[in-house]
Amino acid sequence: MPRTIAVLGGTGPEGFGLALRWVRAGETVIIGSRDASRARETAAKIQTAVGSNARVSGDENRAACAAADILVLTIPFEGHCALLKQIKSAIRAGSIVIDTTVPLAASVGGRATRTLGIWEGSAAQQAAEIVPQGVSTVAAFHNTSADILNGDAPIDCDVVVCSDDAEASKTVRALAAKIPGVRAIDGGKLENARIVEQITALLIGLNIRHKGHAGIRITGLPPQAYR
Amino acid sequence: MPRTIAVLGGTGPEGFGLALRWVRAGETVIIGSRDASRARETAAKIQTAVGSNARVSGDENRAACAAADILVLTIPFEGHCALLKQIKSAIRAGSIVIDTTVPLAASVGGRATRTLGIWEGSAAQQAAEIVPQGVSTVAAFHNTSADILNGDAPIDCDVVVCSDDAEASKTVRALAAKIPGVRAIDGGKLENARIVEQITALLIGLNIRHKGHAGIRITGLPPQAYR
Repeated sequence: MPRTIAVLGGTGPEGFGLALRWVRAGETVIIGSRDASRARETAAKIQTAVGSNARVSGDENRAACAAADILVLTIPFEGHCALLKQIKSAIRAGSIVIDTTVPLAASVGGRATRTLGIWEGSAAQQAAEIVPQGVSTVAAFHNTSADILNGDAPIDCDVVVCSDDAEASKTVRALAAKIPGVRAIDGGKLENARIVEQITALLIGLNIRHKGHAGIRITGLPPQAYR
Repeated sequence: MPRTIAVLGGTGPEGFGLALRWVRAGETVIIGSRDASRARETAAKIQTAVGSNARVSGDENRAACAAADILVLTIPFEGHCALLKQIKSAIRAGSIVIDTTVPLAASVGGRATRTLGIWEGSAAQQAAEIVPQGVSTVAAFHNTSADILNGDAPIDCDVVVCSDDAEASKTVRALAAKIPGVRAIDGGKLENARIVEQITALLIGLNIRHKGHAGIRITGLPPQAYR
């Protein structure tokens, strides 16, 4: 049976973009949303964009979660904890939770160029505290521009992947590498997610200042680091 | 009269590398150290490497500071506050202080892959609180590998420059661009230094994990952003 990826919050721009890219790469994706009909609309849009071979559907977040092996959180930070608590009992044992969340101060009415301090260190570590035992949390895809993901061009950005589960990290790096242009880099432990999350706030500031769609590339590592 | 750059802590690897690159580019540099004779030894090394046209000398930190317009802090975080307090009254009005300091947890016996929380937000903001009025603080050169700076190869790394003084930021960006390979990017306000500082801890982790000399490139910005 092929694996199924549920993109929770997949009606938003980052989730839509990741889902689009993975469906194009032949993955099976369920768009998750609070509203099942909006999720189905988004899935239909991806179907139209990718063509008849596309394996994509839409459902309510909890139902999407129950039908998938890989869950991708692409919701704003203000909904992060609440969504995790809501889906927690629906997460299958052995699943991987990919957390793309950045704790922007915009979540509490502040600026998108600043971050909030998280008690656990990062949004991803907060997620890891909430998910059931036997479910691995992997932090990734914080720095990829939603606008670029939504288009057809390759992504000029590396994805730094952080997790305490080396196998889960490897799976997510392989998934990242399916997006044209992306190089996936093993960023080590989940605790390092705090830095990768904050880079997004810096990139948002650069986008505002310089009117671009900033990403990052890590230079100076041997070729095997980008696998 | 040409400007003079004092590289305080210039006997260490990062300071040595920056000084070497700037002397090569024709700048006038004073190596600063706690120990004037060590500073002079380092200056002699640079003289030998660059040749007879090199304008480089060495002196004790406070004396180096009093003879310069641009001060570059390249000392470990554990000496950051103490050095600033020591040199404070020797800093000329109108000077620019370039802070390259990263508050690594290694400063208090922890890991170089982790950072300390700074009350002001970043080492650079801590510096800005200490320097006299009329002296501008600019955060830059956190992410450039000392090992690569010490060699002859171009630097495959962008320098994100943060300051509340737009003119000082421009001066420092021009200085960064004198190092072959470096692109300088206006990173906005000094408060953004907290993210740029932390990126270094991530890069150190990547270096340990993947055995490299990691740097970063910012992608996706229009050409004028890199000036």
